[in-house]
Amino acid sequence: MSASIEIAQGYQFGSLHCGIKKESGKRDLTLIASDRPATAAGVYTQNLVCAAPVLLDRERTPGGSLRAIVVNSGVANACTGDRGMDDARKMGDLTGQALGVEGEQVLVMSTGIIGEFLPMDEIAGGVVKLAPMLQSTEEATIDAATGMMTTDTVHKLASRKIEIDGHTIRLTGMAKGAAMIGPNMATMLGLVVTDAALAPEDAQRLLLAAVEDTFNCISVDGHTSTNDTVLLMANGAAGGSTLEGESLDLFAVALQEICEELAKSIPSDGEGATHLITVDVSGCANKASARKIAKTIADSPLVKTAVTGADPNWGRIVSAAGYAGVPFATDRVTLYVNGFLLYENGVPVAFDEGPVSVSIRDKRDTAIDIRFGDGDATAKFWTTDLTAEYVRLNADYRT
Amino acid sequence: MSASIEIAQGYQFGSLHCGIKKESGKRDLTLIASDRPATAAGVYTQNLVCAAPVLLDRERTPGGSLRAIVVNSGVANACTGDRGMDDARKMGDLTGQALGVEGEQVLVMSTGIIGEFLPMDEIAGGVVKLAPMLQSTEEATIDAATGMMTTDTVHKLASRKIEIDGHTIRLTGMAKGAAMIGPNMATMLGLVVTDAALAPEDAQRLLLAAVEDTFNCISVDGHTSTNDTVLLMANGAAGGSTLEGESLDLFAVALQEICEELAKSIPSDGEGATHLITVDVSGCANKASARKIAKTIADSPLVKTAVTGADPNWGRIVSAAGYAGVPFATDRVTLYVNGFLLYENGVPVAFDEGPVSVSIRDKRDTAIDIRFGDGDATAKFWTTDLTAEYVRLNADYRT
Repeated sequence: MSASIEIAQGYQFGSLHCGIKKESGKRDLTLIASDRPATAAGVYTQNLVCAAPVLLDRERTPGGSLRAIVVNSGVANACTGDRGMDDARKMGDLTGQALGVEGEQVLVMSTGIIGEFLPMDEIAGGVVKLAPMLQSTEEATIDAATGMMTTDTVHKLASRKIEIDGHTIRLTGMAKGAAMIGPNMATMLGLVVTDAALAPEDAQRLLLAAVEDTFNCISVDGHTSTNDTVLLMANGAAGGSTLEGESLDLFAVALQEICEELAKSIPSDGEGATHLITVDVSGCANKASARKIAKTIADSPLVKTAVTGADPNWGRIVSAAGYAGVPFATDRVTLYVNGFLLYENGVPVAFDEGPVSVSIRDKRDTAIDIRFGDGDATAKFWTTDLTAEYVRLNADYRT
Repeated sequence: MSASIEIAQGYQFGSLHCGIKKESGKRDLTLIASDRPATAAGVYTQNLVCAAPVLLDRERTPGGSLRAIVVNSGVANACTGDRGMDDARKMGDLTGQALGVEGEQVLVMSTGIIGEFLPMDEIAGGVVKLAPMLQSTEEATIDAATGMMTTDTVHKLASRKIEIDGHTIRLTGMAKGAAMIGPNMATMLGLVVTDAALAPEDAQRLLLAAVEDTFNCISVDGHTSTNDTVLLMANGAAGGSTLEGESLDLFAVALQEICEELAKSIPSDGEGATHLITVDVSGCANKASARKIAKTIADSPLVKTAVTGADPNWGRIVSAAGYAGVPFATDRVTLYVNGFLLYENGVPVAFDEGPVSVSIRDKRDTAIDIRFGDGDATAKFWTTDLTAEYVRLNADYRT
């Protein structure tokens, strides 16, 4: 992050090592607090096997009076049964006590190893120590993003500043996630805090829409984790009335942008990845079809390895679209890779492989642009290539 | 193939190098002929983008008067438009002429590079030379299976001999396929010829049922190719009347067995694979759910890399089931890997990792046995692990 971070007003951030990541001694507890009750919304994993903090936060969002988000990394608190639920609830209560607010006003996130219980003594000690250390500085924001990391190689932050109705509104977002590596170092977590004032139902609706086209359109290995969560808090500290109408639309655009920036940073940090691949699908009969095709192409190991090898292999891309389970006019399919036309209206185009291959090899970003002739619907997916290094990381990692 | 091959009566086999695989000079044209009209059935790729020979064979099956199957390897004749259709038809006609039968009595299969046209002069010369060379020997059968190969490291043959109503019935099957490697060296091809007498509609129904639980339950990289085809020919040369009732059921069992043996040989020969993984799903509400869960686990790169690394990572398996999009009782899920109980009724079991890891490492076959408490439906999928070698093969292969 070279650019400075816009910090939403009325929030304080921080993290520390409380003792979960025993071996590395890295930061494993993050806390973000609002100085006043805030609206909160959440979007969660659709995996049937979901973690205790997901179940807890689902009860509490959308809500109108939240005060904090506490996050631990290192242990996912998933597949932990009733004791896991008690622990998640206790983690919220301990945080509430440390901040002088109600336990029910706290949202909880966990990421890390599945099937282990949270070390509650470490967490109890951690929140007591962390609560008085929180700050509204850029450094504290970076610390907070760092405390969420598991296998990430970089912290992931994004922010926006916009003017709405004469008020300066800020959004500060952070995320973690690289891939589902290791013994279930699962999970993508994202959160955005803003000083705008939002009604709970609007917050929930806007967050759902933003996540649908951003966090739900990234794919490193096709796995949906037990803990995936994106939260939005809005405390109104910027002043002004609760957003509605066109003002709300302006906010929605900024929220979508920040979610897209954070979402893309996840495959971009994918284990062993050498390329960030953007799959751009257009001309489909409907949105669901466009998404299904984009996801099928993005999840294809053959498409991913073709990019790894800088191979402009249109056949793998077109045939992946063909098995997406979506009807389309095969004689109206056109494909560009990095701007080069490879396939037009169902027929391969004679092209010089050299320059296309070089453009894939030399650029970090690969653009797959596939167009159909069935309608106006579009979708975008982001993924990584698949490298021998990915396999090594995922095969060789042992508890 | 150490065991001897049962050769169905009334069929002759052979292959040669006609000139498609120019660089390697390997066999690229296979021919199988029946000495009398035969019933034929076919099951084909569900990829919307499908090859010309698939479209042609779909017109001709099920049918009651087929005489031959001609197969070329090296060029898939896919994404080749009207000219491709003309070429496929001509390939059938040329074969018919060489054998002294009608062109419409010939089924055509192609596998190899997508988007290239068949070299028709080479094929024309090939079938004329090959037709008089055909034989009913074990060597000729192996040659036929070899002529279909692309990236396969071994030819794939299976056969059965059964007694039905006092007649000895033989089934001779062959397949090709390792993965969708290279510039679209796509495709799984399979064929079974038998000297049983079958009605066309029975042949079609039995083949569809057999393929559904065998060839349609293998997954190397989740790709459905443009050319996937399984054919069945039944010429009645064993004598006896057209099978029906219990006699037909006996035949169906043998057909299913041979299809399973051939199907498993494909992931077993998967590029760079070090393990054949069998995913056994039971206790589901219905067959479709069981299949969906089995396929989701089999396609998961995280499950595959865990096996590569001999990591008894139950979390990856259970969470893959969780995102299959199928409802199930999460507190009734139980998982065994290579016979070791790792997860029981939704709760991780304390187990000693060492022996489980050793058993995965030392055995070629890995058994994932996941049980649900929602009903009686079962499904089985076969797949491979995912190795750095797979990535290397698929990324580095260039035209």
